[in-house]
Amino acid sequence: MSDYKAFRVELADKIAHVAINRPDKINAMNADFWPEIIEIFNWIEATDEVRAVVISGVGKHFSSGIDLMMLAQAGNQQGRDVGRNAEKLRRMILTLQASFNAVDNCRKPVLAAVHGYCLGGAIDLISACDMRYAAADAQFSIKEIDMGMAADVGTLQRLPRIIGDGQMREMAYTGRMVGAEEAREMGLVNRVYADHAALLEGVMQLAREIAAKSPVAVRGTKEMIRYMRDHRVDDGLEYIATWNAAMLQSEDLRIAMAAHMSKQKPEFAD
Amino acid sequence: MSDYKAFRVELADKIAHVAINRPDKINAMNADFWPEIIEIFNWIEATDEVRAVVISGVGKHFSSGIDLMMLAQAGNQQGRDVGRNAEKLRRMILTLQASFNAVDNCRKPVLAAVHGYCLGGAIDLISACDMRYAAADAQFSIKEIDMGMAADVGTLQRLPRIIGDGQMREMAYTGRMVGAEEAREMGLVNRVYADHAALLEGVMQLAREIAAKSPVAVRGTKEMIRYMRDHRVDDGLEYIATWNAAMLQSEDLRIAMAAHMSKQKPEFAD
Amino acid sequence: MSDYKAFRVELADKIAHVAINRPDKINAMNADFWPEIIEIFNWIEATDEVRAVVISGVGKHFSSGIDLMMLAQAGNQQGRDVGRNAEKLRRMILTLQASFNAVDNCRKPVLAAVHGYCLGGAIDLISACDMRYAAADAQFSIKEIDMGMAADVGTLQRLPRIIGDGQMREMAYTGRMVGAEEAREMGLVNRVYADHAALLEGVMQLAREIAAKSPVAVRGTKEMIRYMRDHRVDDGLEYIATWNAAMLQSEDLRIAMAAHMSKQKPEFAD
Amino acid sequence: MSDYKAFRVELADKIAHVAINRPDKINAMNADFWPEIIEIFNWIEATDEVRAVVISGVGKHFSSGIDLMMLAQAGNQQGRDVGRNAEKLRRMILTLQASFNAVDNCRKPVLAAVHGYCLGGAIDLISACDMRYAAADAQFSIKEIDMGMAADVGTLQRLPRIIGDGQMREMAYTGRMVGAEEAREMGLVNRVYADHAALLEGVMQLAREIAAKSPVAVRGTKEMIRYMRDHRVDDGLEYIATWNAAMLQSEDLRIAMAAHMSKQKPEFAD
Amino acid sequence: MSDYKAFRVELADKIAHVAINRPDKINAMNADFWPEIIEIFNWIEATDEVRAVVISGVGKHFSSGIDLMMLAQAGNQQGRDVGRNAEKLRRMILTLQASFNAVDNCRKPVLAAVHGYCLGGAIDLISACDMRYAAADAQFSIKEIDMGMAADVGTLQRLPRIIGDGQMREMAYTGRMVGAEEAREMGLVNRVYADHAALLEGVMQLAREIAAKSPVAVRGTKEMIRYMRDHRVDDGLEYIATWNAAMLQSEDLRIAMAAHMSKQKPEFAD
Amino acid sequence: MSDYKAFRVELADKIAHVAINRPDKINAMNADFWPEIIEIFNWIEATDEVRAVVISGVGKHFSSGIDLMMLAQAGNQQGRDVGRNAEKLRRMILTLQASFNAVDNCRKPVLAAVHGYCLGGAIDLISACDMRYAAADAQFSIKEIDMGMAADVGTLQRLPRIIGDGQMREMAYTGRMVGAEEAREMGLVNRVYADHAALLEGVMQLAREIAAKSPVAVRGTKEMIRYMRDHRVDDGLEYIATWNAAMLQSEDLRIAMAAHMSKQKPEFAD
Repeated sequence: MSDYKAFRVELADKIAHVAINRPDKINAMNADFWPEIIEIFNWIEATDEVRAVVISGVGKHFSSGIDLMMLAQAGNQQGRDVGRNAEKLRRMILTLQASFNAVDNCRKPVLAAVHGYCLGGAIDLISACDMRYAAADAQFSIKEIDMGMAADVGTLQRLPRIIGDGQMREMAYTGRMVGAEEAREMGLVNRVYADHAALLEGVMQLAREIAAKSPVAVRGTKEMIRYMRDHRVDDGLEYIATWNAAMLQSEDLRIAMAAHMSKQKPEFAD
Repeated sequence: MSDYKAFRVELADKIAHVAINRPDKINAMNADFWPEIIEIFNWIEATDEVRAVVISGVGKHFSSGIDLMMLAQAGNQQGRDVGRNAEKLRRMILTLQASFNAVDNCRKPVLAAVHGYCLGGAIDLISACDMRYAAADAQFSIKEIDMGMAADVGTLQRLPRIIGDGQMREMAYTGRMVGAEEAREMGLVNRVYADHAALLEGVMQLAREIAAKSPVAVRGTKEMIRYMRDHRVDDGLEYIATWNAAMLQSEDLRIAMAAHMSKQKPEFAD
Repeated sequence: MSDYKAFRVELADKIAHVAINRPDKINAMNADFWPEIIEIFNWIEATDEVRAVVISGVGKHFSSGIDLMMLAQAGNQQGRDVGRNAEKLRRMILTLQASFNAVDNCRKPVLAAVHGYCLGGAIDLISACDMRYAAADAQFSIKEIDMGMAADVGTLQRLPRIIGDGQMREMAYTGRMVGAEEAREMGLVNRVYADHAALLEGVMQLAREIAAKSPVAVRGTKEMIRYMRDHRVDDGLEYIATWNAAMLQSEDLRIAMAAHMSKQKPEFAD
Repeated sequence: MSDYKAFRVELADKIAHVAINRPDKINAMNADFWPEIIEIFNWIEATDEVRAVVISGVGKHFSSGIDLMMLAQAGNQQGRDVGRNAEKLRRMILTLQASFNAVDNCRKPVLAAVHGYCLGGAIDLISACDMRYAAADAQFSIKEIDMGMAADVGTLQRLPRIIGDGQMREMAYTGRMVGAEEAREMGLVNRVYADHAALLEGVMQLAREIAAKSPVAVRGTKEMIRYMRDHRVDDGLEYIATWNAAMLQSEDLRIAMAAHMSKQKPEFAD
Repeated sequence: MSDYKAFRVELADKIAHVAINRPDKINAMNADFWPEIIEIFNWIEATDEVRAVVISGVGKHFSSGIDLMMLAQAGNQQGRDVGRNAEKLRRMILTLQASFNAVDNCRKPVLAAVHGYCLGGAIDLISACDMRYAAADAQFSIKEIDMGMAADVGTLQRLPRIIGDGQMREMAYTGRMVGAEEAREMGLVNRVYADHAALLEGVMQLAREIAAKSPVAVRGTKEMIRYMRDHRVDDGLEYIATWNAAMLQSEDLRIAMAAHMSKQKPEFAD
Repeated sequence: MSDYKAFRVELADKIAHVAINRPDKINAMNADFWPEIIEIFNWIEATDEVRAVVISGVGKHFSSGIDLMMLAQAGNQQGRDVGRNAEKLRRMILTLQASFNAVDNCRKPVLAAVHGYCLGGAIDLISACDMRYAAADAQFSIKEIDMGMAADVGTLQRLPRIIGDGQMREMAYTGRMVGAEEAREMGLVNRVYADHAALLEGVMQLAREIAAKSPVAVRGTKEMIRYMRDHRVDDGLEYIATWNAAMLQSEDLRIAMAAHMSKQKPEFAD
């Protein structure tokens, strides 16, 4: 684990805790943030010991989204030719998207623990996580509409698969603040905790539970759910058959079965 | 705005209010209804001033769905050859579908305000809207099953993207009446208002809020959500990057940013 | 109706009641179960009299899922070459999937009535049904994770279309038990009944209601909803137009219309 | 048949002959051309007597493509805001595309008879036809690249389904002229005729042959081939089964069978 | 190998030779033909020894397609209700399609050896094969158009993936006879042999060559090509990675490598 | 341009010439090759001056494909657990694929100039290029089948979009050598040159021609053709409309138009 400017990363109990660490800037996503999150998830992918990931925010809020300074600078770099500007902007957007794709593509479950503000780009980020949990004070808003733009790093692409269409559109067109309890009703978060401390404890507990399962089984399960987001049921059935053709030959099944018979807790290799 | 036989259309505060206007016939969708709604939405598309649309029903109900007279006439026009009848019916269905496709394809958000009966074809219609809101007396039923047919102008195609699969099937197989509150729990409507007046006031207020946002941003947002209904996440990310390559060069971003800095309400061109 | 080892099948009031019938084994899905369910659904497809299907479990539970004996035996049949083992496993999985595909592809609505345990393979089964109903004592768990494997006979493929993404993942990664009421909130079941008797009565009543509708209309409706699970809205609109090109020429429309006019209950041919 | 400014349209032997009729302008596609071709194909769709369509060019050439005047004017209508310009351009392109979509969507086979120049927009047009035939003097070029733009009314979308990928790219990147014989080798045209007269005679003869077949069978066949351009084999099999469920009940089968038995030429209704 | 009424099946040199065996009826596909071909391919799937399949016709022709008697009978079974007839026809078509799906889904390469007539249903059959080879006297025609119907057991679905779009449509709309050499130019057959004997010898030789390769590699290769017919390139890349994750652990790689090093012919297990 | 171990890279006339440079090893793709090609294409993407790319082989051959040493080593790194091995292999394959994805995704046209052997992995490579050209001595073989494996870095995924299905399968199942002229007939290469020198001169000339066109237009054209490989025609039409909404505002159109009017050669910015 190297040092990061925008994050604090810890590994314990087979869980990587990735905390956005710019509390005095409401954890706004600045120029350091975007490449660092890729670096962190490359490390997570490569580190067998990590079996689950928790993302949270240091300080009073999860994150206020993209740093407006950074956005303004991007605007200033435009040249005279609209076509060439468009090409440049297109590639810049694809580059920013890649940061949250790294979260989405992570083979290990990623849990977002949200308290305080979760605005704009922060919604794009948590939409790329597996599950979301909130403290009672959490507030969610698709803030991009108030910046005069359509959200382009994942919210409009991934959130419609997570919450209902009607609420999705209202949030996206109006940018209105949604509280923790309403977010839970919508399916945006799975559970609401009393405060930040209870949230972190609860989410860590859940992460530990997942980390105790067979990593082969967990990663296969995640791959399948990810696959189904964009594929047909018949394709999904064929894909899992091909996937499990190899994975059912893993010794994790034997270990799980033996533990089940002997009523003991199974121990799986990383 | 020309005169319509089946509708009353008003434009105020940048909002087009499209009211089905056959109250003595429970706003049944007759032969005038289908081509007129296309005409109306063509006008909405072409009129820059319109930034949001509200659809409601004049009188005691939203609408009882397709006019049975019209359906019966269609039945009577059949010839002797089953194959040629099938071709004719197929084209007639495609023509009726085109009326609600015009609603679905509208670049501007469309809000349905539903009170009283919302039956059969009326469900097809509101399924093509962005968001749905109800008065407490609203009643919803996929009535086509009781006409001996599978719904074919949009309900079975669009509603499964809006409400859960289990409830969708129960409603479609049984045609049972669903009240406003249950509709809200299902995600069919976003909110329930005490009565018709409160409903219209609430929905108009929401429409005005949307109309105050950057039209470029709102239309881009709608396009993306529409796109995601039928496309993969990776395709959606690439599409928004291509879309925003042009749209981030709009001055609306600068206006929004300036307003944000100066804590003032931004004013966007149509 | 022939005799089955793993099921008890009854036909009454145009409803096929398919009950898993190994109560002393918590209705575990053994080697008899998988081919028999295909046989049963072939019979249902071929029997015009059957208009709706109810699946339940005999005894104290719905089902504990796949029989572990059967799973263990499959493991023992593996040879020395990993590649050839993989081919064999792949085909075995595809064969098991075929059993629940038979449920999913059934042209007639299938209602699951769940009480007690509904674990592992039992979730795969009810995910292939049209609708699910529960007794208050029902308990649901995606148990496969505790067997060291990713679920591969339908849960991971079909359930994401039924419940929200966030809850889906939590259930799949942790295997935690979910009660009837929480299952209802998630959209996993449509309704909760006080006990097993009330459940069966309620579900049978619903099935009878569906059986009273036009079978042509019900089957067309089911085909469309099935189609929309994996197709685009525009494809769905074209498909229903082609479908109804034939089906609107059925006499069921005339019968339904006449019954509607005369306020009588329509009688449809099988 | 009304009068057209850019076309000459004739109906004889159940074949609509649509000739581009601006010979002094090398049949360049001007402002009249685009809406008129929609009008013409609406008439073709609505006229049962028409069973096949031939498109050709009056004078020495098929067509030099889009009128540059028209293109230049479009450029001049741009305003100050890049975003709003983009929206306007997007809708203008979609409008132009609609003209060739009308050709592509025509339920009746459309044969292009090409002689002399077939440049730019003319390739977009013939790509939307069912089959293409050439006189020996025909010359094909994807000319858009020399206008500084990517072709946007159909060539890049439809031609890759017609000719091989490697040749497609070379033609599109270089805009090089391709002669009739090379076009035939590529699969761009089906056959080369000695000169314009032989071409028209040959294509008309082929069209008459098609017009003598069952119109129900021809239209079903076209629908299926169109469908397969963008759908999976399994979807195509299901679609034809649903389509033929109605169409095999047509009397054309009986007529065809009877003619086959009696070795006589069948006569089908329009 | 049981006895078949419509086929003669032989197994030698690891190749199953499936010959249509109704020479006095030009190998017309009668009521025996359709279920027997499924039976035969089930046996091929289950028999490890079979590594490649050759389909040919006994007598002077490959096959004249579906038996007209059988078609006429199907027509006679229709009832009074158009909707219920449609359902019955739809299922009958799906049943016939299943026969050629069995060929298409076969994990082992299937080579068609065509001489004489190859008409109507025979084109549907060879479109489901991997490769097609012809004797110089072979004649191909999409004959269904002359029966007043659109081909519905595979030609219109699979052939567009095999030959060019322009020629496909001409053949399908006109039903014209295409000779062996033209068929080769189109890509319909891979090679033309002087006569029936040379054809069979050539195709058997090719089949033996394939049978000498690693069966794991051949089946994986076929699966991938089959997959790519209907999937995206990125999906295909992911699928082969998942597939080969198991298959690269097969000993066939080691055997192939060793043979390569020692310049000897490798021997692979079935 | 940094130094590469497996390549020699030159930039002249706005064309990047990428030559595989291990002539004494028949340009086998070793461990250096795979990451270096990504590096090179990153540089090509980032270097505006590069407008087209040519790939060739130094020495007597284009390339013999993947280095067998490298393959053997991969085999040796396998552990004891089949499941974990599978995961490792899957990721390794995805990593190798990424190297040729970099070629495929390059926004600038890539021309392959092939002489001598082009075997196994070399086919995977040229399948990711835009166009292929051959010297008369070129020989092509999908060699993977003789290594006991299904090709997994692109051949089976991309080649079916380039050559006909029948020939594709024969080549893939038999691994047979295909000469330059046959490759041209198949559409595998666009043109055959007399020898290596003529080949390089011809391909460079073609690349210069492409480099003289508007880079905005060329890149848009490539993006569209790439897009159409995996998308529907209607999606493609919408995508180009969105793309050109920005790109038609480029000054390249004005420059091209002016050059066209004045009959001069246009000069476009990079």
